Amino acid sequence: MNKIEETWNRINTHKGVEGIIIIDSMGSAIKTTMDQNKTIEYGSLVNQFCEKAILCIKSLHEEEEIVFIRIRSQNKNEIMIAPTEDYTLIVVQNPSEEAS
Amino acid sequence: MNKIEETWNRINTHKGVEGIIIIDSMGSAIKTTMDQNKTIEYGSLVNQFCEKAILCIKSLHEEEEIVFIRIRSQNKNEIMIAPTEDYTLIVVQNPSEEAS
Repeated sequence: MNKIEETWNRINTHKGVEGIIIIDSMGSAIKTTMDQNKTIEYGSLVNQFCEKAILCIKSLHEEEEIVFIRIRSQNKNEIMIAPTEDYTLIVVQNPSEEAS
Repeated sequence: MNKIEETWNRINTHKGVEGIIIIDSMGSAIKTTMDQNKTIEYGSLVNQFCEKAILCIKSLHEEEEIVFIRIRSQNKNEIMIAPTEDYTLIVVQNPSEEAS
């Protein structure tokens, strides 16, 4: 199994992980554990979201790049986003729940 | 000094904090330690950003509300956002730097 598959499986079996998506720079999904509708919806929202976040950081420090975004909700649902130039990893989890 | 002023000063003197802004639900600044241009720019970007983030969370769990967003950049600059229905607190910091 290659490194990517290993990492993918490690994240996917981590406690409380509800879904993982990898999107390209256009927001289109390359790999996902979520259903198609949710994947498309998420991909596009997170893509737009990252664009705004990058503008935010660059208005602070021109040379900066974002490495991590965490969104936490009232009932402990979390969306974690790791953007790179070509791909963005999105992990949806609820740490308080047992592994699915 | 009232509770809000106390909290404001406590955050403002915290190590590495570069700026604090409170915006209303339209993105207009109510209180800020940053210069006017940066405040206006930030207020609008973070407001758009929060709207996308809320859509993200609600597409996952309809009844959910966001309580915290953290954006971390390569050189450890951080934007922390605490949105509520009426106001959003934005703190810009670089934990690795000494208090300004």
